[in-house]
Amino acid sequence: MQTRAAVLHAPGDIRVETVPVREPGEHEVLIEVEAVGLCGSDLHYFESGHNGANELRRPTVLGHEISGTVRETGQGGSLRTGTRVAVEPAVPCGKCRTCREGRYNVCPQGTCLGSPPTDGGIAGLLVVREEFAHELPAGMPADAGAVIEPLAVACWAVRRARVALGERVLVLGAGPIGVLVAQAARAAGAAEVTITDVNPFRLSVAAGLGLHAVRAPELDIAPVDVLIECSGARQAFWSGLESVRHGGRAALVSQAPPTVDGLPLALLQRREIDLLPVFRYAHAFPPAIALAAGGAVRLGELVTATFALEHTADALRAARTDPEQLKIVIHPGD
Amino acid sequence: MQTRAAVLHAPGDIRVETVPVREPGEHEVLIEVEAVGLCGSDLHYFESGHNGANELRRPTVLGHEISGTVRETGQGGSLRTGTRVAVEPAVPCGKCRTCREGRYNVCPQGTCLGSPPTDGGIAGLLVVREEFAHELPAGMPADAGAVIEPLAVACWAVRRARVALGERVLVLGAGPIGVLVAQAARAAGAAEVTITDVNPFRLSVAAGLGLHAVRAPELDIAPVDVLIECSGARQAFWSGLESVRHGGRAALVSQAPPTVDGLPLALLQRREIDLLPVFRYAHAFPPAIALAAGGAVRLGELVTATFALEHTADALRAARTDPEQLKIVIHPGD
Amino acid sequence: MQTRAAVLHAPGDIRVETVPVREPGEHEVLIEVEAVGLCGSDLHYFESGHNGANELRRPTVLGHEISGTVRETGQGGSLRTGTRVAVEPAVPCGKCRTCREGRYNVCPQGTCLGSPPTDGGIAGLLVVREEFAHELPAGMPADAGAVIEPLAVACWAVRRARVALGERVLVLGAGPIGVLVAQAARAAGAAEVTITDVNPFRLSVAAGLGLHAVRAPELDIAPVDVLIECSGARQAFWSGLESVRHGGRAALVSQAPPTVDGLPLALLQRREIDLLPVFRYAHAFPPAIALAAGGAVRLGELVTATFALEHTADALRAARTDPEQLKIVIHPGD
Amino acid sequence: MQTRAAVLHAPGDIRVETVPVREPGEHEVLIEVEAVGLCGSDLHYFESGHNGANELRRPTVLGHEISGTVRETGQGGSLRTGTRVAVEPAVPCGKCRTCREGRYNVCPQGTCLGSPPTDGGIAGLLVVREEFAHELPAGMPADAGAVIEPLAVACWAVRRARVALGERVLVLGAGPIGVLVAQAARAAGAAEVTITDVNPFRLSVAAGLGLHAVRAPELDIAPVDVLIECSGARQAFWSGLESVRHGGRAALVSQAPPTVDGLPLALLQRREIDLLPVFRYAHAFPPAIALAAGGAVRLGELVTATFALEHTADALRAARTDPEQLKIVIHPGD
Repeated sequence: MQTRAAVLHAPGDIRVETVPVREPGEHEVLIEVEAVGLCGSDLHYFESGHNGANELRRPTVLGHEISGTVRETGQGGSLRTGTRVAVEPAVPCGKCRTCREGRYNVCPQGTCLGSPPTDGGIAGLLVVREEFAHELPAGMPADAGAVIEPLAVACWAVRRARVALGERVLVLGAGPIGVLVAQAARAAGAAEVTITDVNPFRLSVAAGLGLHAVRAPELDIAPVDVLIECSGARQAFWSGLESVRHGGRAALVSQAPPTVDGLPLALLQRREIDLLPVFRYAHAFPPAIALAAGGAVRLGELVTATFALEHTADALRAARTDPEQLKIVIHPGD
Repeated sequence: MQTRAAVLHAPGDIRVETVPVREPGEHEVLIEVEAVGLCGSDLHYFESGHNGANELRRPTVLGHEISGTVRETGQGGSLRTGTRVAVEPAVPCGKCRTCREGRYNVCPQGTCLGSPPTDGGIAGLLVVREEFAHELPAGMPADAGAVIEPLAVACWAVRRARVALGERVLVLGAGPIGVLVAQAARAAGAAEVTITDVNPFRLSVAAGLGLHAVRAPELDIAPVDVLIECSGARQAFWSGLESVRHGGRAALVSQAPPTVDGLPLALLQRREIDLLPVFRYAHAFPPAIALAAGGAVRLGELVTATFALEHTADALRAARTDPEQLKIVIHPGD
Repeated sequence: MQTRAAVLHAPGDIRVETVPVREPGEHEVLIEVEAVGLCGSDLHYFESGHNGANELRRPTVLGHEISGTVRETGQGGSLRTGTRVAVEPAVPCGKCRTCREGRYNVCPQGTCLGSPPTDGGIAGLLVVREEFAHELPAGMPADAGAVIEPLAVACWAVRRARVALGERVLVLGAGPIGVLVAQAARAAGAAEVTITDVNPFRLSVAAGLGLHAVRAPELDIAPVDVLIECSGARQAFWSGLESVRHGGRAALVSQAPPTVDGLPLALLQRREIDLLPVFRYAHAFPPAIALAAGGAVRLGELVTATFALEHTADALRAARTDPEQLKIVIHPGD
Repeated sequence: MQTRAAVLHAPGDIRVETVPVREPGEHEVLIEVEAVGLCGSDLHYFESGHNGANELRRPTVLGHEISGTVRETGQGGSLRTGTRVAVEPAVPCGKCRTCREGRYNVCPQGTCLGSPPTDGGIAGLLVVREEFAHELPAGMPADAGAVIEPLAVACWAVRRARVALGERVLVLGAGPIGVLVAQAARAAGAAEVTITDVNPFRLSVAAGLGLHAVRAPELDIAPVDVLIECSGARQAFWSGLESVRHGGRAALVSQAPPTVDGLPLALLQRREIDLLPVFRYAHAFPPAIALAAGGAVRLGELVTATFALEHTADALRAARTDPEQLKIVIHPGD
């Protein structure tokens, strides 16, 4: 089999090409991809060829926020052809201690679709293990399905941060992740969720979702139980920690640089604020789908533009330069 | 000072009388009571003179679901006159190990308003410690304020049961507590909340609140993560446990009899289902008020009748005999 | 390949026979079995043909407390020939939600060596998946290796019961499991561990291990944080619950009957005592081996008799009838 | 009443003077102080007049690691005259949310004996609230009693770090706190506890306590579950984090500076290592006393010198300059 896919060859050099697709093996499914969201890590690879500690060393198909429809099934599976799914892209080894203890998201041997050298989902067809294809409810648009992956990040962040009924939560950064984290925190029973940013467009989207959206420099709030950092602005994080109550928690979702300076460690210690970094998600696709299906989290408002597969490069450029884009989605079938 | 109050002298013998009220001491407040909900324990005292292990030994004012307005403050307090409050009625010692560890609801030395011999709140005036008077948001009706106490039970039950984002929850019993527990579970992010009862009126109220309400004998559901028993029907509890998934949890909110027969212990063990009994609440008034204020839980629909103080006996009889009553509220000021 | 094994054909009818052994497949190892402990479930099968809900329907090799030496390895493994191991006998599916969340011990699709129809380890040779063969430290006797499995039960019980530094623990029943649970609780930092039984021999073994051993009828202790039931005596369990402090925990390790009568549920509720049933173990072989290796738990004292494979029936009868036996071990190689 | 006490007037200026002592009030006790350990914070005040964010503004008695004997009791207490006690020096408000939730160690309104302007315990007599005077077992020397306070720090650190049965723990820094943390981790069931330092004397004390003591530059170990930083050497902390496994935890016990540079945040995030700062202790004196009483933790070896009250200044100088001092104890009664 063959399909068309967006292959990154080098920084700035992404080409839509025909690539081979293998037959689905035992407990695998072949998915016709319908929508793929672009994420900060895709942009990093496109711009620089690396993301965090990972580096592009051979041409790789990008994309890991994927929804589509099962078209073929391998032996032994239980998913049926025609099922619409969101794809959990990070694949753990399943055997190590970390996996067996349920923390499979930090499996040292794990791989992830779209993280070089593992090919991703900006492609017409894709083969994945059945247990990583999560059924979508009837009627959920493909674009929303592509936003399930970042919503899974948000659900896991809320769980890591132990957000509880009636708590006050401050989310730094109103990008796609921040807006989803804020909605997930609210869905988890947080009584007051404040979200900050400096970008007026993002603040207006957040406000439109019913969130308490505040221009970052104007933030002036009572102590919160939980801070969730999604902005990538280090100084904002350090300042935000001053808003966390004694005995509270601070979760870090935005991608961390190798080292950071200026952490107010005495403040964390005096108040015993737990610093809880978040890496992808575990057990989070089913709740993410449930929250979206039930309307507790709205996904459609996040998708600000769609592009056909052939225009993936344009889409990446728009994601980088246009401050009024939140989530851009590629439609490989168009 | 004096006030009028509903004093239980003996089973079936409740009298509205004039009783003394002390001046508020240091860090105490005097509250003008506006609404008091009737609860199963009030009925037990009224009918039999006892409730659980506790017994009426001297005339006692009943009532522990209380809202009102601060009219006087003792020395050193921070609440202001005119503040509208819900009263947390159970008062722990504050010094024992249980209290210091934050489980003050099971303080062995604790007392509770309306639990003989401690006088309760079906009265015109009441003095309580300031930290047990929780400020209500502007505009919340007094009747809703009286339902904060059972909502606190529900919030604590949801926390004890560790309800998490996207989980499936089954609530047994659609009385006032069941309906509040179901709403609190939904507010905590439960994706599917099913509630059962045999009483058609109660099921219709639950359905009107947007809950998935099912006649108990017709229950036929996929495994749930959490079961919360609020029905008092032992056999329903045992049957319900069969619906709990391996590794799930079962919380018990309805008041337990001294001993029970027929517990399916092998089932609990084979699935490692935690059995988590719930007694009152700790740290639960603030989240309860926040959920009600934000609309995540609706309280008004639960109040099916109100009575003036003079008609407290009628109210207790109606609560006992009328299957179409959910929560009856006394208005001491009428 | 062939080996000699103790095959249960029917209640009371166990025969030492020659049975086939398959070649180890990918990530599997062939183990020469050196020691197999007898456990209550082996006795139940031997006496009645069933254990809990499980039943003997075809001839089955018994035994699941197994130590031995790796003699052959299948493809792709990392264990080397000659490695001495303890075998974790319960094998989960590894794919279901329960497994992925780390609670693999209650995997609904799991099987267990020696639980009919799955053959067990009272045999000369045995093939198991590599990740379930846990390396033993140099110098640990094979008999001690066979007691790692029940020690894993004890470690998991201690974890389920959340035993913490300085806590008071009461263990009911000084059989092999009780004695191991008490030692594991002490190793986990419990400050006072009391163990009860009615059997003077068992009490003397417990006392010899430095435990505070008390004849059950003479128990008279201050409130404990944690109760761990290992006696199988229901009334002892109910009485023991009265010793648990407000906010404490009660774990159930002894095998539960389908239903039980007389549970003092009001007591559990008034004190909010969590009832935590324990089923096998998860993630518990490595800590069990570490505790035994470091001397924090002593295993040798538990082994009161050894039998050659040919005398398995005698061993089972001794285990059933001799009150001065604690742990009987079969040596298939003798 | 009057007593002699070591009063810090200014950096370097500590004077032994006669100071007034109030009568014990309700639920208070008067303690004859027998031993007071010197701690890093005492040295900071002595050298610079401040410690963390706190500053000496008026003459203050130093000392917060206190043991002694109850000599008088106020009204309503239950402790008897003659009881030997260790004093928990940090006093929370008991009413705020943080206190009520059981995290009283980070009560924003808390005070601490020996933290200016609150007078401490290097004095002949001291009045404290009864619930903060923890009874010592018969036969425990006064010097060991003075080390209960730092052992409480260690117990709380072990609890914050969630050290579990069989885990591997790395402790950075073999000063008094590090040596106690390592012993507490071992008592909590850690299977392998490694402790590092650069000071040969400290390493030899640690080795003498049966700990695996390693010169810091020579550390080369397999991944640990838990890292506990007690060294105050920032670079050692950052390096140590590389030894923590995916999904592990890192607790910070040594006093943090206002801000730190160089935190390897991407490492923490990629492995989802929780960073858990530790501030004093909650609920930790009873387990600390139990561990010391049972011999699981040895305290005597830590006390390397004792000084009479009159020589407090010499003691502080020795603590600062002598690399072969671990814990120096003042005897106010000498």
